[in-house]
Amino acid sequence: MNTDMPRKPLDQLGTLIEVDAVESLLLDAADAARHRTLALFRTSLAVDNKLSQGFDPVTDADRDAETAIRAMIEERFPDHGIIGEEHQQKSSDSPFTWIIDPIDGTRAFISGVPVWGTLIGLRYRGQSMAGLMAQPFTGETWWSVGGKAQYSHRDLVMPVHVSGVQQLEQARTTATAPELFSSPDTQRAWQAVSSNVLQVRYGLDCYGYCLLALGQIDMVMEAGLKDVDIAPLIPIIEAAGGIVTTWTGESAENGGDCVAAATPELHQAALRKIAESQ
Amino acid sequence: MNTDMPRKPLDQLGTLIEVDAVESLLLDAADAARHRTLALFRTSLAVDNKLSQGFDPVTDADRDAETAIRAMIEERFPDHGIIGEEHQQKSSDSPFTWIIDPIDGTRAFISGVPVWGTLIGLRYRGQSMAGLMAQPFTGETWWSVGGKAQYSHRDLVMPVHVSGVQQLEQARTTATAPELFSSPDTQRAWQAVSSNVLQVRYGLDCYGYCLLALGQIDMVMEAGLKDVDIAPLIPIIEAAGGIVTTWTGESAENGGDCVAAATPELHQAALRKIAESQ
Repeated sequence: MNTDMPRKPLDQLGTLIEVDAVESLLLDAADAARHRTLALFRTSLAVDNKLSQGFDPVTDADRDAETAIRAMIEERFPDHGIIGEEHQQKSSDSPFTWIIDPIDGTRAFISGVPVWGTLIGLRYRGQSMAGLMAQPFTGETWWSVGGKAQYSHRDLVMPVHVSGVQQLEQARTTATAPELFSSPDTQRAWQAVSSNVLQVRYGLDCYGYCLLALGQIDMVMEAGLKDVDIAPLIPIIEAAGGIVTTWTGESAENGGDCVAAATPELHQAALRKIAESQ
Repeated sequence: MNTDMPRKPLDQLGTLIEVDAVESLLLDAADAARHRTLALFRTSLAVDNKLSQGFDPVTDADRDAETAIRAMIEERFPDHGIIGEEHQQKSSDSPFTWIIDPIDGTRAFISGVPVWGTLIGLRYRGQSMAGLMAQPFTGETWWSVGGKAQYSHRDLVMPVHVSGVQQLEQARTTATAPELFSSPDTQRAWQAVSSNVLQVRYGLDCYGYCLLALGQIDMVMEAGLKDVDIAPLIPIIEAAGGIVTTWTGESAENGGDCVAAATPELHQAALRKIAESQ
């Protein structure tokens, strides 16, 4: 378990690319996506089955929103790479790659629950350095550029910070669904942690990590994440003072089994419970 | 199992009490409560432990909101009875009783998740005839008076109607938490239903029933409800075209184990699965 992982050079973004240009892209692209997603939220949707097994709805809104975000990136940063959920990867020689999940939480989306979000992140040589989550129905946006984590709700804009909770017994905890812990190993790990926390909420998708950044949730634990599910959120969590790694303390950049916590103490306590359960 | 339960005289409310006065009370009281709840939502709250065992947070906001709602009822309908979550019951000789849950979903409330709601209902001789659910952070209100179900989101006001889903296999289903199904019987029942539906979401509290009324969720299944958790929602669900009973098809007025569904066919299918599981 690598617990001495160096902090990422979030505050060095300005030496690599213009911070204001990145921030503008994040906010403008989220706004462009908003028109596509809200136009279809809570309407009767043609839901495709992306997987032959199970139920993984991909909506028109999902594809339209990614198209809108990609168009803006291509216009402003034509040489950057792009990874998205719905369209093919755009390779590039640039060290910069944008990573997009147009609707994280498509199941929430098709159930009318406003905890899905549009995720947009920017990586430099594979490390997330800026990111945004927007929930258009509630009118909330969380974003981080240059080491600052910000939150807006309609006209309100403010910096955000995690809670100070250090003990599992005091931790308000969330996971998207108990079914995500589908293997015996992951079930044991989730049981070991969740049975020791103050309370568990399910069903929050990316909104859970953002409530962590806002100091309202103290820990998020999930299994089987894709890179697009977590990468855009890493800068927000870290700039808000939180910590996110895999269950074994490695970088969460590529997804997998992840835990995000408000404090290093809480994070370590969760990692210990997970390790003991295996 | 009583499946021929007569519809309640929702449309007869006007012969018993002035419909407009009831609607005004519901909306005005929700507005008064909103100021109390939003003032404390996402702030650091002093959380009391209502139960010596476990974690049942009751916030100042909860008590303040109920006080504000009660004051308005006492002023406009001084002879009516009042049942609330946070204060003592007010008995009365009147056939009318108001039933209040100032913050349904206190765990959602203290986690910053905007799916809690203020519930206010009106009963005539023990039968719910009008009800309201307000979610102040998202700016949404669902209410029903005189047999009509209405929804407002900020400036938008519109009637609501449930979906037409008749089959379990197509049903978007929700329950507040898997832990609510704590006994072997209730676990088996939930397993029998949830393993046959399209998708399951947890963590919605009263918001789930309102998404049912909005046609976005097709079924809600819960165990161990109190009367205040469900009574104010019954008129909304029924006026939107849905059906809600206990797991054995009896009236849901007093809470207990309840299932709400968009169509009689879906409701029957769930009740059959539950009966077969026992």
